[in-house]
Amino acid sequence: MKFQELLSESARAMRFSAIRRMSAVIERPGIISFAPGQPSPETFPVADFDRILKRAVAEEAAGAFQYILTRGYSPLLEAVADYARRKGMDSHPAERMLTEGSQQGLDLVSRVLIDPGDVVLCEAPSYVGALSAFRAARARMVSVQLDEQGLDLEDLRRQYRACRDAGHRVKFLYVVPNYQNPSGITHTLERRAGLLEVAHELDLLVVEDDPYGDVYFDQPPPPTLRSLDHDGRVLYLSSFSKILAPALRTAFVLGPETLLAKLEIAKQAADLCGSGLSHRVVLACLREGLIDAQKERIRPYYRDKCKAMLDALAREMPEGVSWTHPTGGLFVWLRLPEGRDAEALLEAAVAEGVAYVPGSPFFAEDDTGLNTMRLTFAREDVPKIEEGVRRLARAIRA
Amino acid sequence: MKFQELLSESARAMRFSAIRRMSAVIERPGIISFAPGQPSPETFPVADFDRILKRAVAEEAAGAFQYILTRGYSPLLEAVADYARRKGMDSHPAERMLTEGSQQGLDLVSRVLIDPGDVVLCEAPSYVGALSAFRAARARMVSVQLDEQGLDLEDLRRQYRACRDAGHRVKFLYVVPNYQNPSGITHTLERRAGLLEVAHELDLLVVEDDPYGDVYFDQPPPPTLRSLDHDGRVLYLSSFSKILAPALRTAFVLGPETLLAKLEIAKQAADLCGSGLSHRVVLACLREGLIDAQKERIRPYYRDKCKAMLDALAREMPEGVSWTHPTGGLFVWLRLPEGRDAEALLEAAVAEGVAYVPGSPFFAEDDTGLNTMRLTFAREDVPKIEEGVRRLARAIRA
Repeated sequence: MKFQELLSESARAMRFSAIRRMSAVIERPGIISFAPGQPSPETFPVADFDRILKRAVAEEAAGAFQYILTRGYSPLLEAVADYARRKGMDSHPAERMLTEGSQQGLDLVSRVLIDPGDVVLCEAPSYVGALSAFRAARARMVSVQLDEQGLDLEDLRRQYRACRDAGHRVKFLYVVPNYQNPSGITHTLERRAGLLEVAHELDLLVVEDDPYGDVYFDQPPPPTLRSLDHDGRVLYLSSFSKILAPALRTAFVLGPETLLAKLEIAKQAADLCGSGLSHRVVLACLREGLIDAQKERIRPYYRDKCKAMLDALAREMPEGVSWTHPTGGLFVWLRLPEGRDAEALLEAAVAEGVAYVPGSPFFAEDDTGLNTMRLTFAREDVPKIEEGVRRLARAIRA
Repeated sequence: MKFQELLSESARAMRFSAIRRMSAVIERPGIISFAPGQPSPETFPVADFDRILKRAVAEEAAGAFQYILTRGYSPLLEAVADYARRKGMDSHPAERMLTEGSQQGLDLVSRVLIDPGDVVLCEAPSYVGALSAFRAARARMVSVQLDEQGLDLEDLRRQYRACRDAGHRVKFLYVVPNYQNPSGITHTLERRAGLLEVAHELDLLVVEDDPYGDVYFDQPPPPTLRSLDHDGRVLYLSSFSKILAPALRTAFVLGPETLLAKLEIAKQAADLCGSGLSHRVVLACLREGLIDAQKERIRPYYRDKCKAMLDALAREMPEGVSWTHPTGGLFVWLRLPEGRDAEALLEAAVAEGVAYVPGSPFFAEDDTGLNTMRLTFAREDVPKIEEGVRRLARAIRA
């Protein structure tokens, strides 16, 4: 059979992730890796999971293994509502749903909102998984400039108007205001307020993705856009993958009832429901206050590693190289001098024994950000971080 | 904001499941329910899960809670390949992927193959979750007649030609050959062979969905279409939800490499990956031979309940009512005399204290199968099944 001919337009446009292609290159013994987009397993509360799993199975027996409602296990939905309320976000039951990781939330949002050719405004750079979901829905992705304070609000107005003038429908603005993957940037309170003003002015839906909000080093981040918003125009996504563990595949969406009703139907078609067992584990973690315990535990862990990376960068990097200074999350964003190509550099870096992710796939537009890269401090210990930065500097200098 | 105006065409067409709407009506204390589409929790090997979870956490610690590859945990993929090989289905690594339940497989297949207006040929009746996934991709669903031997092959040719003559692209034929949900029908070996001949003749891709193949009462079902196929034109889906438990959310797809490559990218955009913890549990179940143990355990359990339902139907039902005689699975399909309306009858049945699912939502076309209903024998014990059928007969006679 000629399977190629059977493919949908969406499938034809699908590209194998550039990052995934590179993982074959960078998985080599002895390499110091700043590449993976993953929390450190050293932060996972394994002993707690062990105890909680044991108890869930003992108490609920077979009930823990049955199908659950599409929106998720009801007691967890209520506990999540409390958790969000403590971040200043109230919600009615009809305004919330659990998803299998935030990625599923992003995918469902794309399917419910995007027709081919519709515009999604994204930060430059933006989270590559979100770009994949928007691309699968055949969105037209348009970048808005990002600086260390947050979104460039004049550029937001400009890009919006250009889209509108070109006759395109702008469906929403997608932002990761806290410790963004890949840049590590956090929007200031002032920029958040400004963003909401512009969104009000342009009558723009805002999709706020917040997987890293609990992973701060010293102070919590400024309030979420959803907690600051008075218009009900913010759809908020968050996840327990970074503060608890990814294998729980538990995340949530809070948003306007009209959209949540559609997201529920879309989720039913996408996977019927999540895992009642995982939901019970996350519920126990919330009830026992384990999220707060995890915040305390994770804070010095990532703070020290990030500091080691920033200090090493300051010591080792040649003139003309710049980087962000995150106050939370897992990532530092590095910019080579204009004209350098981080993808071309990767081979030399791997030969030196260090790996990273070139920045270009994090931009909505092709051939953008060629001189950028994402570094994570999550995986390696402090001596390796220092050695890795030395190796990276050598590769850049060569 | 006017959220309604932001919705995609797909979201506008989404309908809240008729079955879900009914669940509010039928969840009443004292009711005997033949409605839920779920395996009985009494069949879940909870003590084994408890032991296996404990061991997985002890042996792998944090490793069991990290992100995994999009295609799934590699050792489980290999174990699944062995499991499929024992059913006569060989596969290369590039031909297989794990999914979060078969529903996700169906959804990803829809996204990779269907453009709006493309035809999917379905059995009449067909699995309602598959219809939802096809509908979300905006497929044109066309029914092919089903009888107790399997698909009506003349009707398959006829429907295919009618679609082609109307200028529509037929993307695939969707079938559930074993103990189908909702009808309980199993395709005979002869019909399977015939189906593959017609598929060859029409150069038709076949999507074979097999969640119930292990849930047989006496003899295993005939070989799968994929094992009988010589053309490589069958994409096969199966799941561990019915033989182990739904909360593991673990299923798999075997199919042509070209399609699997696209399914992997689609899954990456849909949820990044499944749960490494669940995959480790299913792996241990496969390695320990728990699937075979479960088959032995489940076989008499559902066989006796099904027999109780069929005997009660024979005793109680008035003239003109007919039903299928499943040899596995969870469902019996009942047909009222022409002109009766099973949805309208539901209220009277609930008043009698018995619930079922009206059959109409299981048909691709609206207002079809109004005189049909799905009954499950999975939930209630034998005395309740007998009493429930008596109540149902009373409601039908009234």
